[in-house]
Amino acid sequence: MFEQLGLIGCGLMGGSFALAMKKAGLVKRVVGYSKSPSTTDRARQLGVIDVEAPSALLAVAGADIVLVAVPVAATEATLKAIRHLVTPNMLIMDVGSTKADVVQAARRALRDQVGSFVPAHPITGREVSGVEHADAELYTGRQVILTPMDRTLPEQFAKAETVWNALGCRVSNMSPESHDAAFAAVSHLPHLLAFAMMNSITGQAEGDDFLSLAGPGFRDFTRIAASDPKVWRDILLSNREELLAQSRLFQQTLQNIEQAMQKGDTQALEDMITLASETRAHWRMGAQRTSKGR
Amino acid sequence: MFEQLGLIGCGLMGGSFALAMKKAGLVKRVVGYSKSPSTTDRARQLGVIDVEAPSALLAVAGADIVLVAVPVAATEATLKAIRHLVTPNMLIMDVGSTKADVVQAARRALRDQVGSFVPAHPITGREVSGVEHADAELYTGRQVILTPMDRTLPEQFAKAETVWNALGCRVSNMSPESHDAAFAAVSHLPHLLAFAMMNSITGQAEGDDFLSLAGPGFRDFTRIAASDPKVWRDILLSNREELLAQSRLFQQTLQNIEQAMQKGDTQALEDMITLASETRAHWRMGAQRTSKGR
Repeated sequence: MFEQLGLIGCGLMGGSFALAMKKAGLVKRVVGYSKSPSTTDRARQLGVIDVEAPSALLAVAGADIVLVAVPVAATEATLKAIRHLVTPNMLIMDVGSTKADVVQAARRALRDQVGSFVPAHPITGREVSGVEHADAELYTGRQVILTPMDRTLPEQFAKAETVWNALGCRVSNMSPESHDAAFAAVSHLPHLLAFAMMNSITGQAEGDDFLSLAGPGFRDFTRIAASDPKVWRDILLSNREELLAQSRLFQQTLQNIEQAMQKGDTQALEDMITLASETRAHWRMGAQRTSKGR
Repeated sequence: MFEQLGLIGCGLMGGSFALAMKKAGLVKRVVGYSKSPSTTDRARQLGVIDVEAPSALLAVAGADIVLVAVPVAATEATLKAIRHLVTPNMLIMDVGSTKADVVQAARRALRDQVGSFVPAHPITGREVSGVEHADAELYTGRQVILTPMDRTLPEQFAKAETVWNALGCRVSNMSPESHDAAFAAVSHLPHLLAFAMMNSITGQAEGDDFLSLAGPGFRDFTRIAASDPKVWRDILLSNREELLAQSRLFQQTLQNIEQAMQKGDTQALEDMITLASETRAHWRMGAQRTSKGR
């Protein structure tokens, strides 16, 4: 389907996309660029990319599909760097976990070529980062949210849908603002809480002893705390207002539970836990939402 | 090794212990009692217990090993109910996630027979409850913390160690107070946060839409939110002071991260996430602690 994928950012997300595209037979050649030359080199050694590009611009030269897989705060500089080679026939996507900032960055950076850009957020990830962990199956069975702009070209949007569907994803679309509000609640907040809880424990004199006793509940709860620091620094800042609002709501709810504990209000406490427990027991990943089309 | 296990509480933890004991060939017969007769009946149908007892006391009659696997607040009433049949040759254990309260309850309830009681906390669990989920492998490879009292009989303590080792567990021991401080941090706090986060989301008008978008990070982070409400109501209340202290430390750490976000202090934010990420990446379940012996 595509001749050449220009991959900018050869980490977990970008590398996995390249592998998935190759495995699906959707691309003939992958030209990759990473900020760190050793990463690009490693990506080629691992067969994630076929050719190393010395710059983001040169990764785009000759590409008919481009994936920008960098920490979200680097999106604008990256798009500016490639702008001169962007054409209306080129599909450009990102994989960022925030979308309002990315859309604004794309408008500023790509200007009259912004129609080629289809903002994308595949809902997947790992607690490990780096091209060594790239996995052709990372996207399989996951949801992908597209947040097209008014100026997004219909043919590029259609191509984006086709690509993700071909990788085994369920595609839906929403506004960047709705996206960021939702993911502040169900993704960015859990990460923030997991980071804070890890640091709260290690900040205590007995922290290491405590950690040595932790079991499978802790293991799963904190898995996301091991996420890539630069990626998550950018996400927390990029979606700061929505995230702080979610964190305020969370802290109010936490304090309500604490009050029931302090009062020894057994029934209120049981009711609150029951609500949480039943909600979580009935939740199924990706089960409720259906693609709304465009 | 044992003739008869008296099982009081035929839920996930108790049922799994019965299955594991049978599988390991450590017990000839399991006599079970649950508060709900339908649970006891179901446990017998599933082969988790061999004989249904009509009361906790009758589950203990003829037993040389007794497991009390009930929500921690029910420990005292349960031990009182069986006290008349407790002998110095009998090993009695619990599986409660809090220990200071359990030890006090045991002292009050068992009085001169308290030496037969070896307080135990196997560090395992599931997000599902009930005898239907009982699993002979639930304890395999897990840590078990014993919190013996001054009056705990050495031969019963030794038997307890032998039993858990035979089930494939690593056994260590500590004081009830140290236990509760540690588990407030690494188990009870994560549960509290997971409950609060679920309720914070469902309390919002768009909560269901948000939940439909949640991915694998949310799935793992909230797994423990589906835990049994009565079990966790009791744990949160039983270890209230330690847990509230941990929650205060957590909220301070959270607010420090939020301040870095509000100030746009990119470096401070990255440093805090890096600390959490590296700590979690290097943590291995049960890897650091070695049994201290008694």
